[in-house]
Amino acid sequence: MKRMKAKIAYDGSGFAGYQVQPNSRTVQQELMSVLKTIHKGQAIQVVASGRTDAKVHATGQVIHFDTTLAIPIAGWLKALNVLLPEDIRVLAIEEAAPSFHARYHTSGKTYRYKWDRSSIISPFTRNYMVHTKQRPNVEAMRQAAAAVLGTHDFSSFCAANTGVVDKVRTVRRLDIEERGEELHMIIEGSGFLYNMVRIIAGTLMEIGLGRREAAEMASIVEAADRSAAGKTAAAHGLYLENVTYTD
Amino acid sequence: MKRMKAKIAYDGSGFAGYQVQPNSRTVQQELMSVLKTIHKGQAIQVVASGRTDAKVHATGQVIHFDTTLAIPIAGWLKALNVLLPEDIRVLAIEEAAPSFHARYHTSGKTYRYKWDRSSIISPFTRNYMVHTKQRPNVEAMRQAAAAVLGTHDFSSFCAANTGVVDKVRTVRRLDIEERGEELHMIIEGSGFLYNMVRIIAGTLMEIGLGRREAAEMASIVEAADRSAAGKTAAAHGLYLENVTYTD
Repeated sequence: MKRMKAKIAYDGSGFAGYQVQPNSRTVQQELMSVLKTIHKGQAIQVVASGRTDAKVHATGQVIHFDTTLAIPIAGWLKALNVLLPEDIRVLAIEEAAPSFHARYHTSGKTYRYKWDRSSIISPFTRNYMVHTKQRPNVEAMRQAAAAVLGTHDFSSFCAANTGVVDKVRTVRRLDIEERGEELHMIIEGSGFLYNMVRIIAGTLMEIGLGRREAAEMASIVEAADRSAAGKTAAAHGLYLENVTYTD
Repeated sequence: MKRMKAKIAYDGSGFAGYQVQPNSRTVQQELMSVLKTIHKGQAIQVVASGRTDAKVHATGQVIHFDTTLAIPIAGWLKALNVLLPEDIRVLAIEEAAPSFHARYHTSGKTYRYKWDRSSIISPFTRNYMVHTKQRPNVEAMRQAAAAVLGTHDFSSFCAANTGVVDKVRTVRRLDIEERGEELHMIIEGSGFLYNMVRIIAGTLMEIGLGRREAAEMASIVEAADRSAAGKTAAAHGLYLENVTYTD
């Protein structure tokens, strides 16, 4: 038995999210369906670093699965990409240690959130960026972002209806980058609560648009209360970009 | 009565092409449906610079329509973009001379054809670029492109089943541009025959991939015979980028 580790990308537009659910098209179900074909009808479990919601994209999701098949690496890459639908691609695959676990052994994740500041949103980016009609104040967003960095109880940035008890996480990087008309938020941390990245993005944008002051961000974090923060930003601006692991 | 001229963009992925046809979603039908709403049920004809096929995109299609409504320019732009589906956007609109005609008065068009040379195609560009697994020889493509420039009978690059008699056209620009892993063909000319841009793109790519010699291009043009040229390149790599008009 070999444990295989793969880095995958997917366009979230056509999926009800990563995780299998009845009567919905999901990334996990497509992966399992293709692995079942490769394994001649045998069901193969697929474990990802974490779920992503409906419409959320990935450019560097990590999965693992076990196999008894003796297929060379190039063969795996080719077979998976031939059989998978075009909105999921396997970018790399390797044999991992038998103890590797895509979900339990993560040491960090990087997400990117994309806004389009064009006066008229392009029909080509409508599923891939969130349009901001007003031009946000980028410096105010950067000032506010500084208050999010570090280790905090992130209850203010966690969807209220979650069962997670320990809401302390560490944000190691939170950058706001301008790329022409695009505005990106890049966030890297030890781990993220449910909707945490989207609530941070939504709150930073409210500050960018002048609906809140940049100086408020520290007290929003401090409050440890979901109602203190801004709205959850739309799913289709979000990308899971990278996952790192402890050795 | 005023004649309005508008520049529009659309993502061709969700359309059976520009022109109205029964039981299909088309760009023209969406435009006419919205104009009918704005005109309180009155049918409004829309004339474009030309048709685009299913899956073909536009970043600079031009249309005209007539109206008796006294709506200011900013109002037109807003009303159309609020009512249109997100895969069609009106980029600009102005009042034109009553004699302006979006189709009959064109003096030139520019198209762009996009290939992706990545080893694994991104799930985000699958509907917007054509993947080339092998890396094409760009210099060979540029050499061949030079033979297409100028005024020729373009019968070799015209879908066989067309009723057009005069197949003489002038190509004023034909560039091959590299942009990271993307490869673009930009072609500008007086006008184009049916499938002409896609047949030129397909033939240039066959040359890039070494299936034909660059030096053959001159004799392919000379032949004035569709069977002399290469395959029609896939529709989803093509963009109508600009349309110019005589004064």
